[in-house]
Amino acid sequence: MNQPTSKRLRVDLLPQPELTYPDVVLVVDVIRATTTATAFLEAGASAIYTAASLEQARAFKDHDVVIAGEEGGLMPAGFDYGNSPREALEAKVTGKTVVMATTNGTRAAHLAATTAKHVLLASLYNAHAAARLAHELATEEVAILCAGAGGKVALDDTYTAGVLAEFIQLMGLYDLQDGTLIALATRRTYPDPLEPLSLSIAAQSLQRVGLEADVPFCAQIAASPAVPMLEGRVGDALIFRRYQPQRTTASGED
Amino acid sequence: MNQPTSKRLRVDLLPQPELTYPDVVLVVDVIRATTTATAFLEAGASAIYTAASLEQARAFKDHDVVIAGEEGGLMPAGFDYGNSPREALEAKVTGKTVVMATTNGTRAAHLAATTAKHVLLASLYNAHAAARLAHELATEEVAILCAGAGGKVALDDTYTAGVLAEFIQLMGLYDLQDGTLIALATRRTYPDPLEPLSLSIAAQSLQRVGLEADVPFCAQIAASPAVPMLEGRVGDALIFRRYQPQRTTASGED
Repeated sequence: MNQPTSKRLRVDLLPQPELTYPDVVLVVDVIRATTTATAFLEAGASAIYTAASLEQARAFKDHDVVIAGEEGGLMPAGFDYGNSPREALEAKVTGKTVVMATTNGTRAAHLAATTAKHVLLASLYNAHAAARLAHELATEEVAILCAGAGGKVALDDTYTAGVLAEFIQLMGLYDLQDGTLIALATRRTYPDPLEPLSLSIAAQSLQRVGLEADVPFCAQIAASPAVPMLEGRVGDALIFRRYQPQRTTASGED
Repeated sequence: MNQPTSKRLRVDLLPQPELTYPDVVLVVDVIRATTTATAFLEAGASAIYTAASLEQARAFKDHDVVIAGEEGGLMPAGFDYGNSPREALEAKVTGKTVVMATTNGTRAAHLAATTAKHVLLASLYNAHAAARLAHELATEEVAILCAGAGGKVALDDTYTAGVLAEFIQLMGLYDLQDGTLIALATRRTYPDPLEPLSLSIAAQSLQRVGLEADVPFCAQIAASPAVPMLEGRVGDALIFRRYQPQRTTASGED
């Protein structure tokens, strides 16, 4: 598709404050923030804001703004939605802004946004579209940044990074780095995505609060073409909108 | 061998300041610090001190103390040895203290030493002995802490963690965590240890300074029974000595 080039395909299994991103970043928090953000766009939301805290999210609440998030896996007091992608896909959010407050995914997105040219939210759910868009936008590097969980690498995010890396490799020549080879090894070890996702600490936490049905949702590969793409900021929050190919100006019929 | 228990087998692919270690830690910096430390013990060194900087290492130099370390892969000015395990194994260090100054491995060891009960230096070279000792010492958790490289996960360390985890699992029942499953997946993807070690960024750096012959040395599995074990501190440096099973007092015939 493209000419042979030698861009880098990098996977960072944990956000590290000292890391910088020169080009494109795919942020992955597959259980559940980046899957849920995509599901809200599928449901018709016009924008996703990622807020750094529950308090900050509450401050955004308005008649055309709904707030979604989690505290110990569950919907916080005063919120409209939790962080469930099943619920997000059914949500009445057409034309609305959804403010999401999550922990690991938000931290990773904000780290990427500090230096990157393009920040996309990626999951298994939008894996084809996110991989393709990253490949098309990149001039020197595609970085996949896994959110991890509480300072530790996460099996679900590492596996998803491996799926994304495999798709990206199909489209062009990339130099692979240590993290990429680890993610690819993880992906190849588990043919069925439901297995690594179910084994992850994130899935075990969901099971404790009765939300384990979110895991098969998150394990769907490439069921959505929607890719949340960073467009700007409002205060400390990042603004993501659905990437619209081949359009020069917005005409806004979501 | 042991009764069925349910200890945790944890792999941390990167040192993180917020992580704590309640029990046993195997620190892994396979290319090259933890391999080289073991090789110095094989050569008869009575102790390994890990110093936090080149300057600190230089301050230790004395008639029965040699200093070893690296700067860009090579031996720093005024040092007796570099960080090459081949050189360490041939070194004239019988009965001497070797002060080592390296970057990633030292940082990981110092993090582990802050909270852990037992800190061991592990590599492929001493993998059997290190895995067995960790299993025997642990009452609740064996953690394998990979040094990584410059804030990123390292393929060589992750692979080594997988080899160690596989050996530890042979000896008892352990609960596995996300990092452990990722390390095991990496280990199973590469049957020949030389392949992931050669692909790692650490090996590529050695090649640039003509030290690639260290890589096959580091890829030997279980060639040494020596396990450097943390025994104390002197100033900011950690003191490691060869673990001596079944001996109540030292009688020192290395």
